[in-house]
Amino acid sequence: MTLTNSPVHPYFPIDLHLPDYVPLQAHFSYILGVFTAAVAIVFAITWKLSARHKHLTTVERVIACWFMVTGLIHFVIEGWVVAKADFYKDTSGNYLSDTWKEYSKADSRYASRDSFIISMEAITAFLWGPLCPLLVYAIFNAKPWRYTLMVIVSVGQIYGDVLYYGTCYLEGFVHSRPELLYFWIYFVIVNAIWIVVPGLCILHAWRKVSGAVAASSSGRGKAKRG
Amino acid sequence: MTLTNSPVHPYFPIDLHLPDYVPLQAHFSYILGVFTAAVAIVFAITWKLSARHKHLTTVERVIACWFMVTGLIHFVIEGWVVAKADFYKDTSGNYLSDTWKEYSKADSRYASRDSFIISMEAITAFLWGPLCPLLVYAIFNAKPWRYTLMVIVSVGQIYGDVLYYGTCYLEGFVHSRPELLYFWIYFVIVNAIWIVVPGLCILHAWRKVSGAVAASSSGRGKAKRG
Repeated sequence: MTLTNSPVHPYFPIDLHLPDYVPLQAHFSYILGVFTAAVAIVFAITWKLSARHKHLTTVERVIACWFMVTGLIHFVIEGWVVAKADFYKDTSGNYLSDTWKEYSKADSRYASRDSFIISMEAITAFLWGPLCPLLVYAIFNAKPWRYTLMVIVSVGQIYGDVLYYGTCYLEGFVHSRPELLYFWIYFVIVNAIWIVVPGLCILHAWRKVSGAVAASSSGRGKAKRG
Repeated sequence: MTLTNSPVHPYFPIDLHLPDYVPLQAHFSYILGVFTAAVAIVFAITWKLSARHKHLTTVERVIACWFMVTGLIHFVIEGWVVAKADFYKDTSGNYLSDTWKEYSKADSRYASRDSFIISMEAITAFLWGPLCPLLVYAIFNAKPWRYTLMVIVSVGQIYGDVLYYGTCYLEGFVHSRPELLYFWIYFVIVNAIWIVVPGLCILHAWRKVSGAVAASSSGRGKAKRG
């Protein structure tokens, strides 16, 4: 007897065709534990390194830590899902494949290779990803282009995320399991971080640039008048 | 006798289901002529107005003209396709519906209401659109936040466009008619404008901001040392 009608994967919509799906092996708490530990370690190392640059304020040090953490998330975690199209068939118990098997409960478009998701994640992983540590270098060394790069990366993060929500809304949220953990926590709240924090970074850069441009043009004005 | 297999619309893929499609009434040359005239008029008016602001360089005046033109294209033309989901059924001969009936030959996702296209065009029309004339105001009045806003809008334009190409690439360019006019001119070349020109605007803003930030921090450095 074959149970041809039994669900073969935990994703929504339930009629999504994902042959050869291999259930995730790691427990949710293990995935979250490793992720949290990795974020804490990267944050702590960046914080420690930032102490060597005496000109940095506390806000600037926190911003540098944010960009190091988000850059690694982009490159490693989001890079994995772009590069490994068949992660949901992975039998190896690989941590990153298991992470995406778990997250796909909140958005099955990662498993079904939605063209928008893969385009957006490719830019996020392989453009914003490497630009983030470059920005940390720029912040540490007070490069005059640090605020412009901060705005570029942050706008990219926010816009990608707004389109991420927007496409789901237009498609009626059919790709997300309805449980609190998957819809509200993974899909809504976790993704919202990449709107709120980049928004604050843009605000920071906006103020710094406006101050510098105003000072520079009033300086020119004085020079002309003098 | 009914010709049930005759093509009911000119779009690709040919099996796309678009009931009640009404053929466009305007000739291609009329659509292009009105568009070119409108762009020329908006450019000329902005150029004329910019002459009142004596501090503006020629490059800054051209940038202001670009943002006025692109802002109106975003709000009026792209706003139309977002708001009027059934433009392809429009029997009135409306210019904007005819424009989109023509452009859909290069990309039928406008007619089929692809969720990425509509999300991206909604942000472009109703966020980048109104921000463009605000930026022209900021350029005219030398507001210190003009460069930051220029980077924000330009990154939005480029990223939307990159995802536009990226999603088409991943879907195998099935939404575009193969003729030179539709694929190469409308789809590839016209859209490339919104990568090249915003790229130049970011370069302009990058240099101005870097100059101001460098001057401002060396000023602070001197003050500290003095």
